Amino acid sequence: VGDSIEKSRQEFFAQVNSMLPGRCSVGQDVRQQHSNTMTFVPSQPPDAVVWPVTTAEVSSLVRLAAAHRVPVIAFGGGTSLEGHVNAPHGGLSIDFSKMNQILAVRPNDLDCTVEAGVPLDHLTAELRATGLFFPVDPGAGTATLGGMAATRASGTTTVRYGSMRENLINIKAVMASGEVVDTARRARKSASGYDLTRLLVGSEGTLGLITELTLKLHGVPETILAATASFASIVSACKASTQAIQAGLGLARIELLDAVQIQCVNAYSHLNLESVPTLFLEFHGSPAACRDDFEAFKDIAAIEGGSNIKSAIDDAGRKSLWRARHDAFWAVKAAWPGKQLLVTDIAVPLSKLAEAVTETSEDIKKTGLIAPIVGHVGDGNFHVIVVFDRANSSEFARVEAFLDRLVERALRLEGTATGEHGVGQGKSRYMVREHGAGVEVMRAIKQALDPLNILNPGKIF
Amino acid sequence: VGDSIEKSRQEFFAQVNSMLPGRCSVGQDVRQQHSNTMTFVPSQPPDAVVWPVTTAEVSSLVRLAAAHRVPVIAFGGGTSLEGHVNAPHGGLSIDFSKMNQILAVRPNDLDCTVEAGVPLDHLTAELRATGLFFPVDPGAGTATLGGMAATRASGTTTVRYGSMRENLINIKAVMASGEVVDTARRARKSASGYDLTRLLVGSEGTLGLITELTLKLHGVPETILAATASFASIVSACKASTQAIQAGLGLARIELLDAVQIQCVNAYSHLNLESVPTLFLEFHGSPAACRDDFEAFKDIAAIEGGSNIKSAIDDAGRKSLWRARHDAFWAVKAAWPGKQLLVTDIAVPLSKLAEAVTETSEDIKKTGLIAPIVGHVGDGNFHVIVVFDRANSSEFARVEAFLDRLVERALRLEGTATGEHGVGQGKSRYMVREHGAGVEVMRAIKQALDPLNILNPGKIF
Repeated sequence: VGDSIEKSRQEFFAQVNSMLPGRCSVGQDVRQQHSNTMTFVPSQPPDAVVWPVTTAEVSSLVRLAAAHRVPVIAFGGGTSLEGHVNAPHGGLSIDFSKMNQILAVRPNDLDCTVEAGVPLDHLTAELRATGLFFPVDPGAGTATLGGMAATRASGTTTVRYGSMRENLINIKAVMASGEVVDTARRARKSASGYDLTRLLVGSEGTLGLITELTLKLHGVPETILAATASFASIVSACKASTQAIQAGLGLARIELLDAVQIQCVNAYSHLNLESVPTLFLEFHGSPAACRDDFEAFKDIAAIEGGSNIKSAIDDAGRKSLWRARHDAFWAVKAAWPGKQLLVTDIAVPLSKLAEAVTETSEDIKKTGLIAPIVGHVGDGNFHVIVVFDRANSSEFARVEAFLDRLVERALRLEGTATGEHGVGQGKSRYMVREHGAGVEVMRAIKQALDPLNILNPGKIF
Repeated sequence: VGDSIEKSRQEFFAQVNSMLPGRCSVGQDVRQQHSNTMTFVPSQPPDAVVWPVTTAEVSSLVRLAAAHRVPVIAFGGGTSLEGHVNAPHGGLSIDFSKMNQILAVRPNDLDCTVEAGVPLDHLTAELRATGLFFPVDPGAGTATLGGMAATRASGTTTVRYGSMRENLINIKAVMASGEVVDTARRARKSASGYDLTRLLVGSEGTLGLITELTLKLHGVPETILAATASFASIVSACKASTQAIQAGLGLARIELLDAVQIQCVNAYSHLNLESVPTLFLEFHGSPAACRDDFEAFKDIAAIEGGSNIKSAIDDAGRKSLWRARHDAFWAVKAAWPGKQLLVTDIAVPLSKLAEAVTETSEDIKKTGLIAPIVGHVGDGNFHVIVVFDRANSSEFARVEAFLDRLVERALRLEGTATGEHGVGQGKSRYMVREHGAGVEVMRAIKQALDPLNILNPGKIF
């Protein structure tokens, strides 16, 4: 049986090659690049990589894969962090980088339609002249819109503009049968039928392959006011943050860097920030609204002992204030050269944030880890950047135990194992703990829509 | 076979009665009240009605119904408009009116947890003292939160705060197997697994019975500024509306009443408004932000020939300005006593709104119908309130042909057959036209999650 499966696969790859001549590769480097490369999850390369240019080609590939029972794995920018693009059962990686056209920008509808392989940076640049922008910013400009939808990406602006979940109008997808489906029409709201758009968002390529997306756009605000504020403790920074959210201030971003993270960016970016928990904020609105909201924030911060509060409205001033936030990841990387970084995330209800961050901070100290904290605190979501030596197996064991406690803490505080990185392979073991009987519902949907289990098998479940 | 089915059903109802003694009824009036009563869709009463008080009781009822293959239909406030609560195959109506507890209000988390049978008005009243509010307002205060979720309700504030889709954190639901599932944890965002919350939102009781919900709350804005503006034509009113949206003004509501509708409210509410298309607006924000946004709106309106622009910030002034909008439905009812009203809705992309409303207006004239138009124009969504005589079969045929053209128009303009009323029985015939192959995906999900087809059969599909 093993031999006949192998023979069918060889036949499959030969057919893919003749279907898309010159756009298929089995080269080892290419295959390696199309497996997990971003994190500690071990790489599992696919058997081959193919570059379709149309939805019809993707459909043909999936039909062929179904006939031969070969796994297909969608590949966008390759920036996912939990092993989403690995091929644990081998198969075909479908690379969307040649499906990179912006098909329509419709300023009058505040939407645009793009192919799945368009990188976020490319869309942002294209929109610059229109006075509109696409708000979801996961921090990797090479991430593709298709990948961002598939992983339910969010980021610094989610507190105001929502995640990919809130910013999609329609998805064109190839289902496991090869059938092409549009999940919705272009109206901004509809009460017609099941929400297939949101079903595909976050499904990580396990229910369908996203080939096109219609995205909501937003008007660039008249004024953007950036600000920073220092706090004596994580608790007071978190409290100020949640109170600002509760007051309904026009916050577009509110980020926390802990003292360790501030030390890293001071060194890396030649800054001279006080080494204490620091909030980075951005207000969007009319000039008067931004001013009012900033004043209201200062009152809130004062109650929590906030100090050294700075603001800027001009482009250069804003960039300078936010420099530390933007450089956060690279600053950590530079501070411990040769070490591996592992970026993980959890999210909890707003009222539990201070507790979650404080406990995590104490856990890091007690475990003897290097692990700065960066938080999208307006959403109750934060990242831990664990610095470690992969070759040191006892250290790695301590890291793994820490990660497990981190998730347990999130779940105990009514939170989630992942606020924005997704499940992939890295967090699949927490699915039952988080969702209980809900996992069986998810499995039933997976089984119904992909009965042969050819779409990104081994992920989520 | 028919006899044995009948016998099994009788046995089922006897068991329901002994399971919930005194909380089950087969009375004709009660059954009639639990069928469609709001619109032209003919009533189809269930065989019995039951009032559970806990999720566990709902679960037991569903398990019993599954064993006997008896349909179960969730009943909330009974305000749905497309026959959602009808029982075309008989069965058991599960009335949630005794599951009406607000279980928790958490100001620090900006959320609350309620039982499915809590009416919207009750929640609004309970929140008054907290400085928070729940924004989704479908226009029927007796609608229950469970029903609103099940039908993906939206309303006047959706342009700013989103619909039920955007304002739910978690749903507790009884699935067709009787299994109880929580769709999500209480974190405000998560990238963990399929979005079961959004899958149940808008599923109209066909995938699971919602028993509890955790809802997002919002801070009551510091200032609310109401405004009205008259326009010479529907086109110019729609253009002003979409431009205001595109400019990103802090609009919380923007509603259009056409000339016919204004005439009705003038008569009903003893007003003296100019009988022209009129926009009703509401701005939320700081005092300065509301003022800035209103000034910006006046500039936009001026370009489109807007006139007679009024505003108010105090409670009484705002109520007076919005009087016409609030009385719209009742004004139409009073203007043609003894006639039936049929409220339908479609939604299109913003840029197509003027065209859709204008064509519809002309169609109404040409067909010789009485049918005022009221629009949530900030979402590209509008209602037509058709006034007709049910006994006049030729008139009703003209109404039905008009409704069909209305939906065809929506679909031709890349819109949806229903922006907020849902599918139920009334719009199921448009599902394939709107969703194409997507309907098969929906059917596969339905089949997987409710293989016996006991949950609200005959709806959506």
